[in-house]
Amino acid sequence: MRSTIAWQSTGQSTQMRRVPIERRELRDDDIAVRIDFCGVCHSDLHRIRGVFRDEGALVPGHEFTGTVTAAGGKATAFAPGDRVAVGTIVDSCGVCAMCRAGQENYCYEGATSTYGGTDRVDGTKTHGGYSREYVLREAFAYRLPDELDPAAAAPLMCAGITVWEPLRAAAAGPGTRVAVAGLGGLGHLAVKFAAALGAEVTVLSRTPDKAADARKLGAADLLLTTDDKQMEQARGRFDLILDTISAPHDIPPLLRLAGLDGTLSLLGYPGEIPLRVMDLIYGRKRLTSSGTGGRAGTAEMLAFAAKHGITADIELLPSARVQEALTRLDRGDVRYRFVLDLSDLDRPEA
Amino acid sequence: MRSTIAWQSTGQSTQMRRVPIERRELRDDDIAVRIDFCGVCHSDLHRIRGVFRDEGALVPGHEFTGTVTAAGGKATAFAPGDRVAVGTIVDSCGVCAMCRAGQENYCYEGATSTYGGTDRVDGTKTHGGYSREYVLREAFAYRLPDELDPAAAAPLMCAGITVWEPLRAAAAGPGTRVAVAGLGGLGHLAVKFAAALGAEVTVLSRTPDKAADARKLGAADLLLTTDDKQMEQARGRFDLILDTISAPHDIPPLLRLAGLDGTLSLLGYPGEIPLRVMDLIYGRKRLTSSGTGGRAGTAEMLAFAAKHGITADIELLPSARVQEALTRLDRGDVRYRFVLDLSDLDRPEA
Repeated sequence: MRSTIAWQSTGQSTQMRRVPIERRELRDDDIAVRIDFCGVCHSDLHRIRGVFRDEGALVPGHEFTGTVTAAGGKATAFAPGDRVAVGTIVDSCGVCAMCRAGQENYCYEGATSTYGGTDRVDGTKTHGGYSREYVLREAFAYRLPDELDPAAAAPLMCAGITVWEPLRAAAAGPGTRVAVAGLGGLGHLAVKFAAALGAEVTVLSRTPDKAADARKLGAADLLLTTDDKQMEQARGRFDLILDTISAPHDIPPLLRLAGLDGTLSLLGYPGEIPLRVMDLIYGRKRLTSSGTGGRAGTAEMLAFAAKHGITADIELLPSARVQEALTRLDRGDVRYRFVLDLSDLDRPEA
Repeated sequence: MRSTIAWQSTGQSTQMRRVPIERRELRDDDIAVRIDFCGVCHSDLHRIRGVFRDEGALVPGHEFTGTVTAAGGKATAFAPGDRVAVGTIVDSCGVCAMCRAGQENYCYEGATSTYGGTDRVDGTKTHGGYSREYVLREAFAYRLPDELDPAAAAPLMCAGITVWEPLRAAAAGPGTRVAVAGLGGLGHLAVKFAAALGAEVTVLSRTPDKAADARKLGAADLLLTTDDKQMEQARGRFDLILDTISAPHDIPPLLRLAGLDGTLSLLGYPGEIPLRVMDLIYGRKRLTSSGTGGRAGTAEMLAFAAKHGITADIELLPSARVQEALTRLDRGDVRYRFVLDLSDLDRPEA
């Protein structure tokens, strides 16, 4: 086995411990990646706390970039020295309808999560990117385009693809109107991608203080969700609303903003929603969601990001400050994504 | 004022009284219709009982056919003797985005309901088709095609258009797979329309006893929702699932049957649904609904029905037996739609 250093949660607390962990020896189609940068995702908080289920101690992190350090005997896509990016899944069954459709993220057998998952070969639990090394099947790593800064690109691998996929599914582009609710990690990338795709982008916000930032990111407009008159005037205006709010909130007012056959895509984690069918009927609204993306979509997203110079706006911290990142993220105090620099794990603990 | 005879509910009971009611004198763009046949819709039951809100005594009925008996001075579309059909709405604002898009059913000001609505000119309450005469703007009446039996065509005006609209919105046709849950008034018309559009149709049922009927209506297959193995094998199979069940029921098992970007359209009235976003994420499902249709879609549906010989399978009763129809409908004892013959209202009460 290979050994590396990681940040691990304790019980369901966000108190992180620096611990040694094991990585498997490389299989034929594996690569080893020195993790350079890993984003801090809101779902890391949810999962540490056992919001979905009690997962015990976790090494979170499922959006990272790094450098290939070794390749298995039959690995052909990457060689040591290559820059790569890894997202939320590291394996899938490969044969179900979803895998065949290039949507390994929806694998009917369950894709293997980058952390807290179960390896399909040896049954061990997967540990995430809050660590210095990862070993995975090369098929689930992506070449990091030269144009992209590796720290700012890390959040593309979860936050980025999570907003990219619904934009593509809705064919967002010139002539379409896209609204983005929630201007955090996902939301700010949604604005950038939607604007670069040519859509007219509006940020939905409870306060006007984000207007300047919204425009800087590429939005044409900011709509105050607390202003009844603005909300009434915007009724039915949007083809697609990307709702990236991760706290419980009211869905019907957002649905009212969608036009005929318009889509409200729930991308945060608002918990269980009491839905009245009437809210869907009136104007024929579609409620949907999606989670990250498949291999094809992720590669497409990275190519688009490279072409349009899109990365996340980040706050880069040495990984030893992971606790601070989680605490501030929990209270929404981040513009727009924390990224951990894992190089400090090469040095002894301070 | 004009006077006619109607069946009216009492309080929130389905005990119906035969009463005289008034209809307005014809305005310039009105027509008067002698109602010959009116379908009994499940929502009549809901509304009599005040499921949505207490509406007081109601003359229900919003899918009827009849014969024009008089036309206002500026009415141009119809003349006395014409066969017409009327559905769930009899007016709308005409200027909002929905009306301009030909979706008067979603009028932002609220379309005028055929019964229990408020007339836009004089503010009086509208009375429905469980009566011998109706007066309405001619723009909201439709020519009944010669090919269609007027009794069996009546249910097209609510049940029919309600399933037609989502089939068209999803572009159902050759190469698409459509499932229909619930084989009642809406469901049996959904099977007929979907099959005539060229889609491959599967009926979802809790019991196998509907298999023969399903095939007779045009379905290729019946899927037993109580058979876990069949349900697992059908995971992700359908492009569109029309859920016409009007009682509370489980949504996630139906969502699992939808493929990538597949749609579950809720057309019955299952009440308030506790929705877990996770159920939408996995395989990127769309949850939607719709209610009846606009003028353009309704005319299109009638033309298609005429071309393909599609009407409802009905049980025709003299209107004096309305109570029996409501009682049997309430326990699901109908194949597939009750239609009232209103001609008995010309005779004195027995």
